[in-house]
Amino acid sequence: MPQVLAAFLQEAREKIEQHLPEYIEGLNAPTVLKEAMTYSLKAGGKRLRPILVLATLKSYGKPLSLGYQAAAAIEMIHTYSLVHDDLPAMDDDDLRRGKPTNHKVYGEAMAILAGDGLLTYSFQLLASANMLSTDMKLELIRRISQAAGPAGMVGGQVKDMLGEGRELDAEQLQQIHHHKTGELLSVSVEAGAIIAAVPEKEKIALREFGKQLGIAFQIKDDILDVEGDVRELGKPVGSDEVNNKSTYPKLLGLAGAKEKLLSHIAEAKKCLYKTSMDHTLLIELTDYIGTRTK
Amino acid sequence: MPQVLAAFLQEAREKIEQHLPEYIEGLNAPTVLKEAMTYSLKAGGKRLRPILVLATLKSYGKPLSLGYQAAAAIEMIHTYSLVHDDLPAMDDDDLRRGKPTNHKVYGEAMAILAGDGLLTYSFQLLASANMLSTDMKLELIRRISQAAGPAGMVGGQVKDMLGEGRELDAEQLQQIHHHKTGELLSVSVEAGAIIAAVPEKEKIALREFGKQLGIAFQIKDDILDVEGDVRELGKPVGSDEVNNKSTYPKLLGLAGAKEKLLSHIAEAKKCLYKTSMDHTLLIELTDYIGTRTK
Repeated sequence: MPQVLAAFLQEAREKIEQHLPEYIEGLNAPTVLKEAMTYSLKAGGKRLRPILVLATLKSYGKPLSLGYQAAAAIEMIHTYSLVHDDLPAMDDDDLRRGKPTNHKVYGEAMAILAGDGLLTYSFQLLASANMLSTDMKLELIRRISQAAGPAGMVGGQVKDMLGEGRELDAEQLQQIHHHKTGELLSVSVEAGAIIAAVPEKEKIALREFGKQLGIAFQIKDDILDVEGDVRELGKPVGSDEVNNKSTYPKLLGLAGAKEKLLSHIAEAKKCLYKTSMDHTLLIELTDYIGTRTK
Repeated sequence: MPQVLAAFLQEAREKIEQHLPEYIEGLNAPTVLKEAMTYSLKAGGKRLRPILVLATLKSYGKPLSLGYQAAAAIEMIHTYSLVHDDLPAMDDDDLRRGKPTNHKVYGEAMAILAGDGLLTYSFQLLASANMLSTDMKLELIRRISQAAGPAGMVGGQVKDMLGEGRELDAEQLQQIHHHKTGELLSVSVEAGAIIAAVPEKEKIALREFGKQLGIAFQIKDDILDVEGDVRELGKPVGSDEVNNKSTYPKLLGLAGAKEKLLSHIAEAKKCLYKTSMDHTLLIELTDYIGTRTK
């Protein structure tokens, strides 16, 4: 990993890990609810969405601290979606990232409420981000709620459910992924751009960057499930095959999927060159997403 | 029912029933998701929360149309909470207001997602209320997310769950109800006040009015479960007794509960007299809540 990127990721992750639980601790809410919310927030993962918020800010020369609330809010929305997705009525998963899922620890009722709590609180956090202007906060809420709601992530979950067990083509697969995961990734970049107060034209380019990055991220995920290293990934490989899931390697072949990955990585970078930012960091991050081994 | 109130309720309900499904129809989301969201929104109920938003606006001489989005957003939040509350992992209810609950019609997974969709969309709707100023929209989002979130309604659900099967005193019961239902009722009145741009002092009085009204509403609910008319209520009476629920009549006796009801109705009215509004409508509505037979 290039040094600029490595240094940035370390700084960004430290700030994210520090602030996420802090925002919950201060809440005047039942202890067990705060515990359940924090449990899944702390379960970690790549923190890709908050990193994209902060990386975009950094690329426009703005202080990272302006983006902490937006980064945390988006990570809370991502986390709530995983908590609800793991429920017995949905994917019925007992483990996530090697740890028992929320409902396995706190019970189903509490997991539903912890998800509801994270989602609702994310908007309170956005509305209370004191270092941002009223207009910025409102634009963040408008765009994030759209990306996360029925026309975005929630709609994508529904499409994914409806597509299960059916033969999908590459176009349909991409549509589902775009709504289910791509829109929240894309709005993470856009959130950084909103806070950096960039012109509308650049926001459009960055929205497209986020879209391309999201597709690339998913293709790489599918490829790693075929040829990744179990020890590096920390999860079993070949599970898509076992679960008979529609994936890019299955639809396009492994070579075809790799080619598609490269083309979306290239498209993503092109979008960055249309902006006035210092591209170094996001170019490195994009390349890293295409070449990561975990 | 007094004529002023009756005429207002009819007008307000018509507008609410018209706009609620309209806001969903326009969404670019999977059809079945929109159906599931609309199903529970249309299942009706008293529409008390949106009525409070619009009644407050009316009392300050403002056009009702300014409050349609806020009224709908709060009703969507109320509805999502019922959909999730009815789930097998929560209260496991098959019927609500005589109709099959959401998960009975659409399945558990879709009911969870319909709830998530309603909650997320409510904030998008608030953020897009074009007739309101940016400051107003942000204040609405901040206050409503607080009232609905971990420190409000979601926290109240958790407290209610923790209190099940335990002996509660009247103070604890009131605390649970205040968080579980009172805060959203209270913020409905406050939302009307925010949109009417009333001074902070009046908002505080109206928040207290909403709190007192919420307590009165719950006491009356408990009383009706003891001595209400099955045909008028449209639901069985005596169910609290059967379910061994903590209620005001149980803790204070029926006479004690009625006395407490009257005192909260009186307190609620006192708050209205501290404001500059035309009180007629909200006084009538308050009296109606204390004397309703269904």
